[in-house]
Amino acid sequence: MPLVRISHRAGVTEAYQQALSDGVQEALESTVNVPAHDRFHILTEHASGLIADPHYLGIERTREWVAIQITLRQGRTVAMKQALYRRIVENLAEKPGLRPADVLICLVENDLADWSFGHGEAQYVQ
Amino acid sequence: MPLVRISHRAGVTEAYQQALSDGVQEALESTVNVPAHDRFHILTEHASGLIADPHYLGIERTREWVAIQITLRQGRTVAMKQALYRRIVENLAEKPGLRPADVLICLVENDLADWSFGHGEAQYVQ
Amino acid sequence: MPLVRISHRAGVTEAYQQALSDGVQEALESTVNVPAHDRFHILTEHASGLIADPHYLGIERTREWVAIQITLRQGRTVAMKQALYRRIVENLAEKPGLRPADVLICLVENDLADWSFGHGEAQYVQ
Repeated sequence: MPLVRISHRAGVTEAYQQALSDGVQEALESTVNVPAHDRFHILTEHASGLIADPHYLGIERTREWVAIQITLRQGRTVAMKQALYRRIVENLAEKPGLRPADVLICLVENDLADWSFGHGEAQYVQ
Repeated sequence: MPLVRISHRAGVTEAYQQALSDGVQEALESTVNVPAHDRFHILTEHASGLIADPHYLGIERTREWVAIQITLRQGRTVAMKQALYRRIVENLAEKPGLRPADVLICLVENDLADWSFGHGEAQYVQ
Repeated sequence: MPLVRISHRAGVTEAYQQALSDGVQEALESTVNVPAHDRFHILTEHASGLIADPHYLGIERTREWVAIQITLRQGRTVAMKQALYRRIVENLAEKPGLRPADVLICLVENDLADWSFGHGEAQYVQ
């Protein structure tokens, strides 16, 4: 169910994009109970226009900075969200090799009735 | 009021984009009481980076897959949302000819005070 | 903390993009208590696909129309949001010279636990 938007700099390879998607997806499945195969990601490259403060909260960010916004139904605990964040940066550090400082994550919650996965049905409220 | 984000594959025509926008807008007006002319859409094409599982929930998706995320004020019932989903896929099946399996819809709700339509005013709380 | 998405027409200069970002950021800091240096913006240009009704609510919009969607933690009052909207359009009218009618603003609220600014930590719940 999550809808994942990943914004990254331009000029990366398809393998890099795939690694971003894979790393976020594995984290969602292993920490917040997202089912296998429930993957809906929108990755966007930015030749300009990705603007992140290079020092906010004492975190040193570079031009590799990536923003990950995830819309998902409400119900995850704070501890689950913390586990999700840790796992995402661990996965992305391994592949494609992102510095953990360069990963911003932002969640937005909605309800089960707010999703249709195809055929115009609200699959989670039937 | 809704702010509609439509993400689709690259290489489509302007008529295709317009049909996506028209189909979603007609559905919003006919099922969830969006006023005529209240249209604010952001369509984005993706040469790569649109990643949807091809089988999740038994729905067979193709490379024509489209993601529609709609931010709108809270207050619509589940039945209204279900009608919205059905109408969107009906409209898009007719024009531009999208398979209903290829349409993901995700809603995000906010409040009346969360909107300014121009001039820096919060038109819905005055 | 806010994550700001700004969608604007294609063909603008980098100085124009920077002015959009600066104007929104100054408004966030001066009206809704966003800390200095808490800047995370994603600007996207659109050669096509930015569709805004040219007259809705009697506001005359042009092809310079800009959509600004801001995700931020809940807790701002209606009065604070109104001040934010006014300040954004004032700032953008001064630089890069946007007509106040051409600015749509939409807020989405989430919780403190919904943010990670780097290192995989939820900095606002520790």
